[in-house]
Amino acid sequence: MTDNSHNSRGSEVDPEVLTKCRGYEEYVEAKLGFRNHWYPTLFSDELAEGEFKSHAILGDRLLMTRVEGKVLAIRDRCLHRGVAFSKKPECYRKGTITCWYHAFTYSMEDGKLQDILTNPSSKLIGKVGIRTFKVEEVKGIIFVFMGEIDPPDLSEDVPPGFLDDNLAVRGVRQPVASNWRVGCENGFDSTHVFIHKDSILLEGNDITLPLGFVPKSNDTFRVEDKAGAPKGVFDLLGQHCEPVFEGKIGGETVLKGRIGSKMVANDISVWLPGVLRVSPFPDPSLTQFEWYVAIDETRHFYFQVLGRTVENDDEVAGFNQEFDEKWKDLALAGFNDDDVWARVAQQEFYQDDRAWYLECLFEPDKNIREWRRLASSQNRGIQRHENILEGARILARNE
Amino acid sequence: MTDNSHNSRGSEVDPEVLTKCRGYEEYVEAKLGFRNHWYPTLFSDELAEGEFKSHAILGDRLLMTRVEGKVLAIRDRCLHRGVAFSKKPECYRKGTITCWYHAFTYSMEDGKLQDILTNPSSKLIGKVGIRTFKVEEVKGIIFVFMGEIDPPDLSEDVPPGFLDDNLAVRGVRQPVASNWRVGCENGFDSTHVFIHKDSILLEGNDITLPLGFVPKSNDTFRVEDKAGAPKGVFDLLGQHCEPVFEGKIGGETVLKGRIGSKMVANDISVWLPGVLRVSPFPDPSLTQFEWYVAIDETRHFYFQVLGRTVENDDEVAGFNQEFDEKWKDLALAGFNDDDVWARVAQQEFYQDDRAWYLECLFEPDKNIREWRRLASSQNRGIQRHENILEGARILARNE
Amino acid sequence: MTDNSHNSRGSEVDPEVLTKCRGYEEYVEAKLGFRNHWYPTLFSDELAEGEFKSHAILGDRLLMTRVEGKVLAIRDRCLHRGVAFSKKPECYRKGTITCWYHAFTYSMEDGKLQDILTNPSSKLIGKVGIRTFKVEEVKGIIFVFMGEIDPPDLSEDVPPGFLDDNLAVRGVRQPVASNWRVGCENGFDSTHVFIHKDSILLEGNDITLPLGFVPKSNDTFRVEDKAGAPKGVFDLLGQHCEPVFEGKIGGETVLKGRIGSKMVANDISVWLPGVLRVSPFPDPSLTQFEWYVAIDETRHFYFQVLGRTVENDDEVAGFNQEFDEKWKDLALAGFNDDDVWARVAQQEFYQDDRAWYLECLFEPDKNIREWRRLASSQNRGIQRHENILEGARILARNE
Repeated sequence: MTDNSHNSRGSEVDPEVLTKCRGYEEYVEAKLGFRNHWYPTLFSDELAEGEFKSHAILGDRLLMTRVEGKVLAIRDRCLHRGVAFSKKPECYRKGTITCWYHAFTYSMEDGKLQDILTNPSSKLIGKVGIRTFKVEEVKGIIFVFMGEIDPPDLSEDVPPGFLDDNLAVRGVRQPVASNWRVGCENGFDSTHVFIHKDSILLEGNDITLPLGFVPKSNDTFRVEDKAGAPKGVFDLLGQHCEPVFEGKIGGETVLKGRIGSKMVANDISVWLPGVLRVSPFPDPSLTQFEWYVAIDETRHFYFQVLGRTVENDDEVAGFNQEFDEKWKDLALAGFNDDDVWARVAQQEFYQDDRAWYLECLFEPDKNIREWRRLASSQNRGIQRHENILEGARILARNE
Repeated sequence: MTDNSHNSRGSEVDPEVLTKCRGYEEYVEAKLGFRNHWYPTLFSDELAEGEFKSHAILGDRLLMTRVEGKVLAIRDRCLHRGVAFSKKPECYRKGTITCWYHAFTYSMEDGKLQDILTNPSSKLIGKVGIRTFKVEEVKGIIFVFMGEIDPPDLSEDVPPGFLDDNLAVRGVRQPVASNWRVGCENGFDSTHVFIHKDSILLEGNDITLPLGFVPKSNDTFRVEDKAGAPKGVFDLLGQHCEPVFEGKIGGETVLKGRIGSKMVANDISVWLPGVLRVSPFPDPSLTQFEWYVAIDETRHFYFQVLGRTVENDDEVAGFNQEFDEKWKDLALAGFNDDDVWARVAQQEFYQDDRAWYLECLFEPDKNIREWRRLASSQNRGIQRHENILEGARILARNE
Repeated sequence: MTDNSHNSRGSEVDPEVLTKCRGYEEYVEAKLGFRNHWYPTLFSDELAEGEFKSHAILGDRLLMTRVEGKVLAIRDRCLHRGVAFSKKPECYRKGTITCWYHAFTYSMEDGKLQDILTNPSSKLIGKVGIRTFKVEEVKGIIFVFMGEIDPPDLSEDVPPGFLDDNLAVRGVRQPVASNWRVGCENGFDSTHVFIHKDSILLEGNDITLPLGFVPKSNDTFRVEDKAGAPKGVFDLLGQHCEPVFEGKIGGETVLKGRIGSKMVANDISVWLPGVLRVSPFPDPSLTQFEWYVAIDETRHFYFQVLGRTVENDDEVAGFNQEFDEKWKDLALAGFNDDDVWARVAQQEFYQDDRAWYLECLFEPDKNIREWRRLASSQNRGIQRHENILEGARILARNE
């Protein structure tokens, strides 16, 4: 018996499936995420000066290091024999990585093959290189541009407000065993509030949370697709829906939503390349940002970030303490672990591409359809296995 | 590297293989079993009033519950987003199941979407439904009709005699890591007695068991295919074969069969959709019934049931005690564990479809060929992945 | 969801890949190794008189036994129902194997179906057979000819000198999780010395080991392809390269090779069907031979054998003691475990066939290219899944 999958050209979507997913074909194809976008990778404190870390993203693998404070990222695969540098990172000169196998030595800055310790006379030296990725480090998060085009400003790929000077942020990340789109739709899906009805956050923070929403008009969303700005979809439930606080079967009330002293989550939006903003949440004083970054076709990194507008260092310190003592456990774990569980449960169905047309969406899912359409029309490229499996880059042919 | 299998349209049999399996093509295709037949699922005492259980069968998954004594079965997958209800069954009104994710609430009786707690105004309510399966509970076993046609009487899908009023039955079930057909053929295969030559049952119940059989005519089987009755094949070894009690190599006896005081197993037959009757067995006072029910392509549930004709409640109680104290360990485990082991050993070869023509059957296997032909011509449909992956059923278009 | 791989016709190489691997297409196809060659299987002391052992090789499985000192090998799969004899080997007469399932009994000598204990009158007896494989036992190693042609002399498939009368050998074997070609190229690759720079063997045996080699001419190899003799490639680094003892980055020395009192490894060659000779190694008094024998597409058995020229029994005893007390741990484990680790690290890339053209070889890899070309032109056949999945062999049609 033989496992054929190792020869796979990547799992392409059957054209018949795409025909049935009219309007969001590119989204259905984007199992590995969208290319030529900025993604969060590590938190700044995960990468010390001189440290090397491997990070899986969009089916690819990055080797990341920090040199004199600056973060550098190259593909974690030697062009010679394809091994991962990170299996045994060897660094003999700041800003370089030497492959443990045959000592091909690359500049971490531009990826150029700088020297080969086992054959210093090789003609390859200076002529070929490995792919590098642009890095921006802001708000304690290392963002990487997964693509080859001239990157647009990071501000185009994060939700509005995230880069505001007076926004202090803190967060956590974890791998989740579902495709990134399942993560994204779980977050943006307004009626999934139902799964949170028993969350400790509701009592713990005295929050109002309905069981669901009845749309009252067709205007339950607003699309943002202006050039040079983030592309996203706003959920306008707050304005155009009626919250459901009594769950009924056959007219009889069987469940009740919770009414507390705090109103949250009246402003929800999702943005390319797959990041949610919920404001305010989990408290009137906070905004939650969530990224769902593909690791591979069946897993994503779930980045949860809370932000608070602060005026001075004391307020920053206060926020940090509150985050560590309260919100990390009560909200990021206590509330969103339900979502993590739900995404994993959903993955079995959606790992078959046909799920995208066999599903049976209902009225409040209109926002989700709109997000799929926006993502299909506004993304900068689909990540494909070809992007990952490319060979050596020729840097100079005629030297 | 990518595992392509998640996109698989199901593992169809190569037409070239089918060409080489002339006469039992449908049997070779029926990796997931036959559709539109009755199958045992749980024993009655495994499902209490109000309890919900998920049960894997024919590549599909059932959600089963018991309401006022009556067992109900629907597909264990919400039509909205494809999750399994059984991950966290929520029931707020008797006879319904509410999906834990968005509170789609279905009637367990007819599968109709009865309410949606998160959006009680949805137009889907009452219009779409989930597949339900007919249930019959007899002899302490819950049978489910895995299909959509108007079900024939259960009596057409069980071996003759099984439903007799005065037959008391007891049984056990276990998953086995082989395809259901491998299970079925292991049971019906007359010369596999060889593997039981050292079974504790032989000494323990003083049974006669030969090492094999020499067919003495071509009439070693009899086909039953009358309309409106069970379809099966009888093995007529008892009448038309000579038992082998001396195993010889090059004329020299190297092994002997066992001669005991009890004769068993002179009446063996196999029936659609994959159930064996051995009479008497494991004792002259008992009949053994065995079902091999596909879980998926590589596993089956092995249902072992013993029956005894009883006259009154005392005899029922006596049988129950004997079953628990003696037959369960000595026969169902002590003897048939050899078969379970053999099926698992056989699976590696038969999981490649080509095995069905690369095998090299011999004379006593004529009965097995006949079973394959009967199963191919008399089944009511092949279970296919399409049957499992269907979307929502539209119940009412014009309301 | 379904895993399609069980129906796989074997993982064939995409023709487009072969086009890009001009000159060594057959090597790229030979995932399971080359057919019609001699391979080491077990060490002699692993198979006692009358013992049965199953051995995985080239995607196939052998049943091996020893009868009156002579080793016999047949395919470990009964032709009747495809089960492995080795799951429960039953032997009732010397030189035969009886299948545990239906008592098909074969001659271990010629594979002929000699008797069937469950039906001694079967017409199959004497007419069909199972594949047998020729065996040669030399130097304490059991070699099997994996093919059906009239085997050439074993001496054509081992490195020159290995069969010399006065060469005493000792060895170990272990499974390694990489394709056999990755193993082979790791061994023959001259610049992989870099990974051994910190090996305990260097200090432990005071060995000189450079960091790499600068080729000084194009004559860095010599091909041996004379008819009737082993086919191999010699690495002529010793003569035509300059060893590198100072590893430099940007002109600055960052690492140094080791200069010791002992010079080793100046004569390195690789031979069909995938065996390396390093002379002397790991000591001026020893020669190392290494086989990389495919288990399946992703694993190989790594046979490491040390040989020493001896004059008398005392020298044999001395070599044996030295092997057990020193070389086994210091060299075969202490040094070559680095290589085992490197091969496993390399497998992820090379399990995708495109790796064979996406790789980026450099000047010292010329020898490796030459080996691929030789292997492609001089092998006696590619092992394919068809070779493994064949049915019964008809021995006599008209009796």
